[in-house]
Amino acid sequence: MSPFTGSAAPTPSWEHLRVEVADGVATVTLARPEKLNALTFGAYADLRDLLAELSRERSVRALVLAGEGRGFCSGGDVDEIIGATLSMDTAQLLDFNRMTGQVVRAIRECPFPVIASLHGVAAGAGAVLALAADFRVADPTARFAFLFTRVGLSGGDMGAAYLLPRVVGLGHATRLLMLGDPVRAREAERIGLISELTEEGRADETSHHLAHRLSQGPALAYAQTKALLTAELDMPLAASIELDASTQALLMTGEDYAEFHAAFTEKRPPKWSGR
Amino acid sequence: MSPFTGSAAPTPSWEHLRVEVADGVATVTLARPEKLNALTFGAYADLRDLLAELSRERSVRALVLAGEGRGFCSGGDVDEIIGATLSMDTAQLLDFNRMTGQVVRAIRECPFPVIASLHGVAAGAGAVLALAADFRVADPTARFAFLFTRVGLSGGDMGAAYLLPRVVGLGHATRLLMLGDPVRAREAERIGLISELTEEGRADETSHHLAHRLSQGPALAYAQTKALLTAELDMPLAASIELDASTQALLMTGEDYAEFHAAFTEKRPPKWSGR
Amino acid sequence: MSPFTGSAAPTPSWEHLRVEVADGVATVTLARPEKLNALTFGAYADLRDLLAELSRERSVRALVLAGEGRGFCSGGDVDEIIGATLSMDTAQLLDFNRMTGQVVRAIRECPFPVIASLHGVAAGAGAVLALAADFRVADPTARFAFLFTRVGLSGGDMGAAYLLPRVVGLGHATRLLMLGDPVRAREAERIGLISELTEEGRADETSHHLAHRLSQGPALAYAQTKALLTAELDMPLAASIELDASTQALLMTGEDYAEFHAAFTEKRPPKWSGR
Repeated sequence: MSPFTGSAAPTPSWEHLRVEVADGVATVTLARPEKLNALTFGAYADLRDLLAELSRERSVRALVLAGEGRGFCSGGDVDEIIGATLSMDTAQLLDFNRMTGQVVRAIRECPFPVIASLHGVAAGAGAVLALAADFRVADPTARFAFLFTRVGLSGGDMGAAYLLPRVVGLGHATRLLMLGDPVRAREAERIGLISELTEEGRADETSHHLAHRLSQGPALAYAQTKALLTAELDMPLAASIELDASTQALLMTGEDYAEFHAAFTEKRPPKWSGR
Repeated sequence: MSPFTGSAAPTPSWEHLRVEVADGVATVTLARPEKLNALTFGAYADLRDLLAELSRERSVRALVLAGEGRGFCSGGDVDEIIGATLSMDTAQLLDFNRMTGQVVRAIRECPFPVIASLHGVAAGAGAVLALAADFRVADPTARFAFLFTRVGLSGGDMGAAYLLPRVVGLGHATRLLMLGDPVRAREAERIGLISELTEEGRADETSHHLAHRLSQGPALAYAQTKALLTAELDMPLAASIELDASTQALLMTGEDYAEFHAAFTEKRPPKWSGR
Repeated sequence: MSPFTGSAAPTPSWEHLRVEVADGVATVTLARPEKLNALTFGAYADLRDLLAELSRERSVRALVLAGEGRGFCSGGDVDEIIGATLSMDTAQLLDFNRMTGQVVRAIRECPFPVIASLHGVAAGAGAVLALAADFRVADPTARFAFLFTRVGLSGGDMGAAYLLPRVVGLGHATRLLMLGDPVRAREAERIGLISELTEEGRADETSHHLAHRLSQGPALAYAQTKALLTAELDMPLAASIELDASTQALLMTGEDYAEFHAAFTEKRPPKWSGR
């Protein structure tokens, strides 16, 4: 637990997500399988608030985002979201779209790695949640569809027009966001959209294996690696190298770096404290 | 036709390009097949002015850029351009190079998707025109050659040193721009330089099929997707997400978004108005 | 030799590197094969100073960076560097990490192409040196390992969190920098981390062949191509196109551009002067 936790109480229960924490690994499951885990206003809000809460508490060292049932997530619910937004005023529309973007920012900015565990469909906002994660572990049934233009909206939803070209290049990103066609696992792997392709039905198991590995590792080193990857996409070369130098100088005063050297000298595996 | 068209008259005829418009699709053909469609001063100027004209009129919803004969475009004409620039003064040299760059900006900034239909050679400025397009549809005879260093010039011509690393990554881009070696269709597809590889001789047909599909779709959604992809290459994450939110809020007040919901509810295909 | 060489004398001998210059090609060899060419404080400092010296002298037109023995470079020496940094104060830690970053800046900013010739291991700082090069020529025994988190440090060392996503995309870069797992030649080629894959044992020969080709070519055109690729990663589109226009206008007043036209007209190969 961080010493910088203030008065805000932990949320006693998350109504729109299934949240489990064990051994430093949080598992967040989208659990409306009868609707292919279509996102509701409540699910977006819970994701935003949960990530903020976990980021300040610091008890979690890796997070798996998964979907129950036949697929990962079919995106925003047509009835509950598209229908509802048609009667919203300007301020409400902006509020809604800012909230969904805040979920993506929270995934990119939280201090622990996020692993999207993917099978079946990852469509619309579901595809962007996966895109925002640090790792995309997918089985061969996984398929992405950035289908925003199919509903008359911009393909640049929730940061997709920023993130996707930086993951797969501008050519593929244009095709995927403009047309909204499905991208199957094989193509997704070829263009760099998948971090690890597993056997069918093994995405959750592999994701948890990776999360466990990360939760046992040097947490501060991982957190800073993620922070620099996120920040340096927006920074010039010289400033990035200066940021790297000061970050590395700082981590060289930390416990884990000294522990590595001691373990190496004693020919034993290091015991990481994350400090 | 846009209500914001002023006094400027449409150009009655384009002397250096073949331009056809039908059903919202413009087909622009480089048509000097005896010279492998080598570009002249007039062709660059026409491309710049045509794209500006089409952008303000808004009657075109997709554009195919193709080449007649054995290949797409062999680049700037050695006699008419290289020879002529050797006797230009400083201001003229800058004017010429700004004009070619303006063609690339016009391709990236026009509000409709641009499809480069590629077969045979796309060399020099021809390779950069293709690179600036939103889609590169190519048959197996297509080959790219960014051969600027071969004539003693910088590989960063017309934005190539900006665009190519964002399409294929810095490693491949360095190799292609520094050496100017040809890249055949198979490699181009592997590194992400081709959007769709067709059978031999089918690039034009496939390009028009795609253009037709795009021209029938939600034009404003496509235009904003393109605008965000272009803008967010130059924007940080948080600002991009804010831009996405306000863009999406705006499009949620549009006709096409409401039409999608109505069509979905009535179990019929949507009729897009582009508004 | 540049007319802008001042009082600084050329370094009579480089103690921590093997440096050979012949026919405009510098070959810099990491030569501690008994330690898998682990880097020492002296080797970093020599690389920084050598690149600065070669950059101002202008006699070198291409540089090959190679490793003697079983591999390219195993990274910073565990005893001489990790051990020593554990007793450094804050200012010294910052000085050390700035120096390593300066080597990467020098590789990116020197006016000649740098070719990393790779076989066996390129680990830690060795992987980043290779990443900073313009070309990575590798044989099938080559493997990269960005193993900074394995020693408790940030994966963003020496600009790696800036460079790697721009070479292989954010997804692969996150996986490589966060986990530090080895990347073998086949995967490295697939994700764009290798410029040219050679037969086993042929990386040095192929690197020198490429360096010789580059040293015989239009040096100023190559230098500006490299400078624009480096600069435009950090620039917006419109400014990049303006920079391209003024660079190209400048090079069109140069000797090599006129020589290309003369040679083309006379149907002979051009004789490049690099001016």
